[in-house]
Amino acid sequence: MNERNGRGPVGVTLIGSGRMGSFHGASLAQRLPGARLTAVADPAPGAAEELAAGLRAASAYTDPAQAFADPTVDAVVIAAPARFHAGLIVAAAEAGKSVFCEKPAALSLEDLDRAIDAVRAAGVVLQVGFNRRFLPDWVAARELVDDGTLGTPRLLRSVTRDPGGFDPSRVAPDTIFNETLIHDFDTLRFLNPGARAVEVYAVADALVEPGWRDRGLLDTAVVTVKFDNGAVGIAEACFEAAYGYDVRGEVFGSGGMARMGDGRLTGMEFFGPAGRSSQTPRNDQALMAGAYVAELAAFVDSVRDGEPAVVSGRDARAALAIALAAAESVRSGLPVQIAGQDR
Amino acid sequence: MNERNGRGPVGVTLIGSGRMGSFHGASLAQRLPGARLTAVADPAPGAAEELAAGLRAASAYTDPAQAFADPTVDAVVIAAPARFHAGLIVAAAEAGKSVFCEKPAALSLEDLDRAIDAVRAAGVVLQVGFNRRFLPDWVAARELVDDGTLGTPRLLRSVTRDPGGFDPSRVAPDTIFNETLIHDFDTLRFLNPGARAVEVYAVADALVEPGWRDRGLLDTAVVTVKFDNGAVGIAEACFEAAYGYDVRGEVFGSGGMARMGDGRLTGMEFFGPAGRSSQTPRNDQALMAGAYVAELAAFVDSVRDGEPAVVSGRDARAALAIALAAAESVRSGLPVQIAGQDR
Amino acid sequence: MNERNGRGPVGVTLIGSGRMGSFHGASLAQRLPGARLTAVADPAPGAAEELAAGLRAASAYTDPAQAFADPTVDAVVIAAPARFHAGLIVAAAEAGKSVFCEKPAALSLEDLDRAIDAVRAAGVVLQVGFNRRFLPDWVAARELVDDGTLGTPRLLRSVTRDPGGFDPSRVAPDTIFNETLIHDFDTLRFLNPGARAVEVYAVADALVEPGWRDRGLLDTAVVTVKFDNGAVGIAEACFEAAYGYDVRGEVFGSGGMARMGDGRLTGMEFFGPAGRSSQTPRNDQALMAGAYVAELAAFVDSVRDGEPAVVSGRDARAALAIALAAAESVRSGLPVQIAGQDR
Amino acid sequence: MNERNGRGPVGVTLIGSGRMGSFHGASLAQRLPGARLTAVADPAPGAAEELAAGLRAASAYTDPAQAFADPTVDAVVIAAPARFHAGLIVAAAEAGKSVFCEKPAALSLEDLDRAIDAVRAAGVVLQVGFNRRFLPDWVAARELVDDGTLGTPRLLRSVTRDPGGFDPSRVAPDTIFNETLIHDFDTLRFLNPGARAVEVYAVADALVEPGWRDRGLLDTAVVTVKFDNGAVGIAEACFEAAYGYDVRGEVFGSGGMARMGDGRLTGMEFFGPAGRSSQTPRNDQALMAGAYVAELAAFVDSVRDGEPAVVSGRDARAALAIALAAAESVRSGLPVQIAGQDR
Repeated sequence: MNERNGRGPVGVTLIGSGRMGSFHGASLAQRLPGARLTAVADPAPGAAEELAAGLRAASAYTDPAQAFADPTVDAVVIAAPARFHAGLIVAAAEAGKSVFCEKPAALSLEDLDRAIDAVRAAGVVLQVGFNRRFLPDWVAARELVDDGTLGTPRLLRSVTRDPGGFDPSRVAPDTIFNETLIHDFDTLRFLNPGARAVEVYAVADALVEPGWRDRGLLDTAVVTVKFDNGAVGIAEACFEAAYGYDVRGEVFGSGGMARMGDGRLTGMEFFGPAGRSSQTPRNDQALMAGAYVAELAAFVDSVRDGEPAVVSGRDARAALAIALAAAESVRSGLPVQIAGQDR
Repeated sequence: MNERNGRGPVGVTLIGSGRMGSFHGASLAQRLPGARLTAVADPAPGAAEELAAGLRAASAYTDPAQAFADPTVDAVVIAAPARFHAGLIVAAAEAGKSVFCEKPAALSLEDLDRAIDAVRAAGVVLQVGFNRRFLPDWVAARELVDDGTLGTPRLLRSVTRDPGGFDPSRVAPDTIFNETLIHDFDTLRFLNPGARAVEVYAVADALVEPGWRDRGLLDTAVVTVKFDNGAVGIAEACFEAAYGYDVRGEVFGSGGMARMGDGRLTGMEFFGPAGRSSQTPRNDQALMAGAYVAELAAFVDSVRDGEPAVVSGRDARAALAIALAAAESVRSGLPVQIAGQDR
Repeated sequence: MNERNGRGPVGVTLIGSGRMGSFHGASLAQRLPGARLTAVADPAPGAAEELAAGLRAASAYTDPAQAFADPTVDAVVIAAPARFHAGLIVAAAEAGKSVFCEKPAALSLEDLDRAIDAVRAAGVVLQVGFNRRFLPDWVAARELVDDGTLGTPRLLRSVTRDPGGFDPSRVAPDTIFNETLIHDFDTLRFLNPGARAVEVYAVADALVEPGWRDRGLLDTAVVTVKFDNGAVGIAEACFEAAYGYDVRGEVFGSGGMARMGDGRLTGMEFFGPAGRSSQTPRNDQALMAGAYVAELAAFVDSVRDGEPAVVSGRDARAALAIALAAAESVRSGLPVQIAGQDR
Repeated sequence: MNERNGRGPVGVTLIGSGRMGSFHGASLAQRLPGARLTAVADPAPGAAEELAAGLRAASAYTDPAQAFADPTVDAVVIAAPARFHAGLIVAAAEAGKSVFCEKPAALSLEDLDRAIDAVRAAGVVLQVGFNRRFLPDWVAARELVDDGTLGTPRLLRSVTRDPGGFDPSRVAPDTIFNETLIHDFDTLRFLNPGARAVEVYAVADALVEPGWRDRGLLDTAVVTVKFDNGAVGIAEACFEAAYGYDVRGEVFGSGGMARMGDGRLTGMEFFGPAGRSSQTPRNDQALMAGAYVAELAAFVDSVRDGEPAVVSGRDARAALAIALAAAESVRSGLPVQIAGQDR
């Protein structure tokens, strides 16, 4: 790993000041004592300035190249649109900056391989935003895998349901696979460590918005993933759930089952005329805020200590390969093999 | 124990054809293959006939003495108003009939002692309707007490909340203690076996119906019970809960805690716009039907096998002593000692 | 519907005295006041006699034809091995007897169609043992489908995991589909009423007993079922779970989600040195006993009242069609279409 | 409220570098962007230096008076032993510093009144460390009280069980009331806002360590608190639970019930040979870390904005009055009245 510049907090520039970027920026500026938000970059007029001012970051750029040129910057957090991710990773790596990149790290394996190669050549850290790995329930489940309690995984499940209100102009035919389910594909891999996905079968449809069907858009999908250790994973997603934001999973092995996500916002239960009830999370941040901070904390630690990222480019590639196969499976109506993905 | 008449199903006459009596009658006639409902007795004109006809019982009486005179009857189930219980137990025992009696078995210790003496003299079975002992959660908790898992009990809790709609004409000042909380007092004893209640402190009020206060009626109460092994039990009751019928408890000992009653009607959970919800039981039968049948099944087994009842007159006496002390504590505003209750 | 013989309890003969047959026999003899167990038939020497004696049934046969010849018998309960089911249904129907048949009602669509035709010709009742429909959680979920609360179903799930200890000599290559998952296929249909399964994709393996693989036996399977209303169902099964018997499900629609099965034996929770814990059901009867009784009660009511069965031959045929398609999908590795199954 | 010094982060000095002090120090230094840890004070040789160095605080003192003299300090956080609390509050207030003080704010009403008077005279903020008010479940329950959903409170419960390992040399006869149950007394008040405690009855014993009994030490207690609106609260505590740290509660009113605390560390559930299980929190920080940070965040906001504290000296006084009455009740064996506590 590269030497980073200096010994104080890790200097990080944020690239992208949208919803997720703003959250990451606030984490860097206010919640992570080991990090220092040096600057915000966003091409939209005034956007970077506004966020930088709010977070007391020293600089605001309209071009991320300005960030890459700053020698006091150790790392960048990329929260730009997905189609720019791979190019930004390459540019950052070539400038010697470590990179935390929101998922998906790229939209094609070719782009992703270029990015990974650049990262390796530069010896910098690359961490991808697979935040489920930082949710306490999932961390606890993985511990039961690692310590042998769950035995050999047989069946896995990962579910993502969004609260709805999607803007169709931001949805492409493969969005449900490479933006949403890519989390679930990574989760299946996270809970079946060491195994390789070998075959994918997907069914998908526009069930929330049947009008999307003619435009080839998909809002609901179920994906079956066969692994080389015999385990079978199911990933399912829907862009709208009447009850809010739903992330759950389970891993069932020879030693038992772990179930993650109880669907509640808090443990408070109200008993009233309508029965017993709990609140549910209404958006991702209600459920994921802690995980968003934790993944950045892990990244900052990796950069500071020159340690490999806990979620690597290899993980990004394996999840993307499943997403691409799932999209192909929907187009062909057939199961799709995944070639050896070691890299 | 007495010899019972014959070898086929145990012949049982039901005394009292109200709500609880009707349920017990149906259990005897239709759900307990080891029992035979021989007759129904009720002084209300036509009541016994109607229930007997519906349940295909051979006879209907307006006077329970008729039941006591029938030599083919092995036992009676008493579901008459509480003030008649003790007298009916005495008469049944003197006629050689075993008795299942709804709680409370009597309204004074003197009456209860007379009844217990008659039962002992006759060598018949007496079981009292402390049905919580037959709820699966409570049975499972008691097993953890008996096998030592819970260790020495330290703190216990038993809660009863009714769904409301009480008829004030059927409520006397002590009703909440000797008709409702007597279940909880028995439950505390059930989960702290071998210990004796030594002191009781109660607070009670008319919080559901403040208008009751002037008439001395009480609808909400909390009772602290100290046991001679140091454990402290809390029993609480309220005549109205907006969410239905609520029976819960917990026992905490040196080895851990058991918690009974999850407040749900089924395990089905609905996630909708209002969050996550479960249905709650809306009346006692929704929660207790199985326990009502199970307690009669145990009684029928005891009569058939000549075995002691699983809930004895001694249990009835100990719970009544606590109920009487609680009522006295409310009147005096002071803790009340319970004299040695061994009998 | 046919007229049944007489007006008293429905006379039922049990065919098959194995584990499930014995349970059904006890239900008929002791738990269902509307039924009368007339006889037990089983070809194994002495088996019928023993069970009949224990349940006080009047007759014991080694040949079910004897039951069909008895004019006082209204109905038969078939709990024989699956390969005999269709033939027994035909024979019973031709003798004018109504039939409750354990699943699967047949092993091929041809056999099942013969059976259904015979039942229709005779005007008798045919109910198939899809017992999940009688579990309280599932009944409650279906109510939310029927009253519109759940909206249009999008994603469904049904899970069955057995506690293990399977005898491989009783397992054929398709057993997991036509004996185990057939419950789940019916459950998916039950929760997506009116929709028709149109395509099935299955993956399956021998993960519990890898040694089974060479013999073509399967112990773990995941099946994706597409319905003609766009909904996608996932059915999964495994022959061994370290924690016992696991039946769960969920239905997610435009109005929300219902989740069935909380995996606990009772609501009692123990908090001890190992954390918070509940007991899990260790075998099917611990979870299903009530449903086993309820399905027979519904059958007896249908026979008595001359009403159609609540689970019909058509339901049996639709579930079997999915099971056969799933088995074919595993053989071919491809999705399998289901032809129009209306009959 | 006083004007505070300057406009940047609120300058806070920590007094007391023990377990709780260290946690608060880390929160001020690393988790609260609105605060700045200026110094640590602790009379133990080297203790303040070590913590200050670890947290990059500028100064370390052995005498808190040094903190009070520093004009750049806006506020102090007092985490010293309870017997020093009142004196430190007075000294801080007289120096114009706002105060966050761990509970109990004093050990007698006289001392507390002196402290409250000093705070009022100085116009500074005083917040007391009643951290339960910042747990998400309790916050959500209070919202249901405030918006009327729960109706008029009737019965309340608050439970604290520690994981054990108490050092008897740090336990005095009243410790369980004024250090542990004082949280529960405040919680009862928090959930029954506007009501005044009027009578207290307590039972307590040494059940964990029977050997403590001779020394007058108590490790287990149950306290009944009557409020002037008729509601009855139960507070119970024990110094040892085999399953860890247990904080739970419930509030039952005319509109329903809220139940707080589900006793789990995460939502992950493991199903294995021993059944279904969840981890439980093993110490206070596992459960309360978020609340510890949130209460300081609220304090910092109050100081910055010149707003009253969300937990006031009046709250401290009311809870202390209940604690003192509970201790007296144990000594006398009788209920104890609480005089009008408005101040």
